[in-house]
Amino acid sequence: MCKSHVLSVSSAKAPFEKTTIERRALRPDDILIDIKFSGICHSDIHTAFGEWGETIFPLVPGHEIAGVVEAVGSAVTQFAVGDRVGVGCFVDSCGECEYCLKGEEQFCTKGVVSTYNALDYDGQPTHGGYSQKIVVTERFVVRIPDSLELDVASPLLCAGITTYSPLKHWNAGPGKKVAIVGMGGLGHLAVQYAHALGAEVTVLSQSLSKKEEALAFGADHYYATSDPATFKELANRFDLILNTVSANLNVDAYLSLLRVDGTLVNVGAPSEADTYHAFSLIMQRRNLAGSLVGGIRQTQEMLDFSAEHGIKPQIERISADQVDEAYQRVLRSDVRYRFVIDISTL
Amino acid sequence: MCKSHVLSVSSAKAPFEKTTIERRALRPDDILIDIKFSGICHSDIHTAFGEWGETIFPLVPGHEIAGVVEAVGSAVTQFAVGDRVGVGCFVDSCGECEYCLKGEEQFCTKGVVSTYNALDYDGQPTHGGYSQKIVVTERFVVRIPDSLELDVASPLLCAGITTYSPLKHWNAGPGKKVAIVGMGGLGHLAVQYAHALGAEVTVLSQSLSKKEEALAFGADHYYATSDPATFKELANRFDLILNTVSANLNVDAYLSLLRVDGTLVNVGAPSEADTYHAFSLIMQRRNLAGSLVGGIRQTQEMLDFSAEHGIKPQIERISADQVDEAYQRVLRSDVRYRFVIDISTL
Repeated sequence: MCKSHVLSVSSAKAPFEKTTIERRALRPDDILIDIKFSGICHSDIHTAFGEWGETIFPLVPGHEIAGVVEAVGSAVTQFAVGDRVGVGCFVDSCGECEYCLKGEEQFCTKGVVSTYNALDYDGQPTHGGYSQKIVVTERFVVRIPDSLELDVASPLLCAGITTYSPLKHWNAGPGKKVAIVGMGGLGHLAVQYAHALGAEVTVLSQSLSKKEEALAFGADHYYATSDPATFKELANRFDLILNTVSANLNVDAYLSLLRVDGTLVNVGAPSEADTYHAFSLIMQRRNLAGSLVGGIRQTQEMLDFSAEHGIKPQIERISADQVDEAYQRVLRSDVRYRFVIDISTL
Repeated sequence: MCKSHVLSVSSAKAPFEKTTIERRALRPDDILIDIKFSGICHSDIHTAFGEWGETIFPLVPGHEIAGVVEAVGSAVTQFAVGDRVGVGCFVDSCGECEYCLKGEEQFCTKGVVSTYNALDYDGQPTHGGYSQKIVVTERFVVRIPDSLELDVASPLLCAGITTYSPLKHWNAGPGKKVAIVGMGGLGHLAVQYAHALGAEVTVLSQSLSKKEEALAFGADHYYATSDPATFKELANRFDLILNTVSANLNVDAYLSLLRVDGTLVNVGAPSEADTYHAFSLIMQRRNLAGSLVGGIRQTQEMLDFSAEHGIKPQIERISADQVDEAYQRVLRSDVRYRFVIDISTL
């Protein structure tokens, strides 16, 4: 066992407090990580605010974890003390079902174990990355390439894989017209991935305020969705629309922008139901889909791809006592583009 | 020009009247068809009742047309007088766009011309199959195999292709678990196609009342959706769900029956919007889609496949003066499984 200072919330919407938890003693396949940086994901906020079903309190959020290996269990073979590593949204899975065997642990039939707000297979609640230390089974640890700084790498562990995975799954690439809805933490990474994959990239954002930045990230076109002319001009245009916004949208309007056989993929999840008319799907054989993060193998691929193509999130580093304020700023979309907690301030 | 007796309605929900219309003089690539049978599709009712946007009155519905070639234009090469032929939901398209060239005329970028309640490229309203005669350009006429009776063949022109096309598009076949929602005009054909394609077929119907018939059509399993236990037992089961019901469903409940990467395809279109929670799509990377009839090439393939596999709709033949009553019976789901109008009674 080892003690770890953490940031935790004791009830829905309570402020963060500095407390301590115990991390488990190393099992043979475990890795103890000295966390250096932890990104703030909108999911953290939904969970801390009790908006996504029941939250297990006290809660230590954080699933964008970057750090250095501090100790390894006796059976660990892939990592050594001092290695630069990351942990994303999951910390365990059965390892035996068809999805685990395919490297898509997020769909594990036994139930993948989330990095926080879940019960581990031993019955203990999991606690995330707003923490000095974490113990994770080797299979769920990825390697951060040398060319990626740890603070910059941390948001890739959720925001990066969440956008990279659907772009790969739905074949974003040369000859494809891809729209990214929302230019936030996820969106500004999605633009970079879609561009690096060779697609023609259009950003659909509420206003024109982020246009210059989007073009710098690799977007070919940029439209404001507050302008109704956008939806007329872009009708039947896209092969793929990646919706990174976790607010309710006019789904029919976005579907109308898809070509025949095009797909609108949601990675953001609003608390309330969305509505659509079946005709919006039927008339052009359109698809509406969702995508859940990505598997560990693909997470490693995404990190390597990011390093190779110089893809990185634009971050704002904050200290541990700025997290409450950062949450409020995320809710106001007042962040360009991801907050990362400097864990040394904890 | 040639006169044709027809059944028409003069306003939304008005009763049918026997009237006459003029069919155009044959153009070089036109075929004059002596209609023998015309199926009644739920779309006819939605349109005659003014439920699907604006209807052009007087309306002659009918897009499940089976008959015999009575005359051909000077440039017709594929058909001769006396040939047994069918016409489905469309009667013209540009013939030049990428979709027409692929044989998916339903997605024609100029706008495919529907068999009724549309304006033809010459600006004249189109009139459908509740009619003794119809003139259709050769490219939109299909051949009815000798082993299919004309009355039995007629519903295949819409109900058949509407279900066959998505089953092929989403790869229903050996090793795939396919559910058919609804055991009506479309559903009872979908069961036969999915079975003949080699899939494991489950029918999801409101009650158990059609179980024996479904099994006879080739279903492997049958569940009542009025029983909440059905949704627990079948969770995460299907690769593909084909929803043939044009009423609003609990979309989240049906999505929960899909495996990872599974697809729920709507071919029925309720007038009102449906609702779904993004999580239902995200958690298993599920898809929600729509499918629109099918192209002419695939319609011919479907007819040949039906003949080869002995697939046919179960029909109830009615006379021209029973159509109003038949509409009411369709609305009460009191038909097994498709009404076909005997045009000789017109």
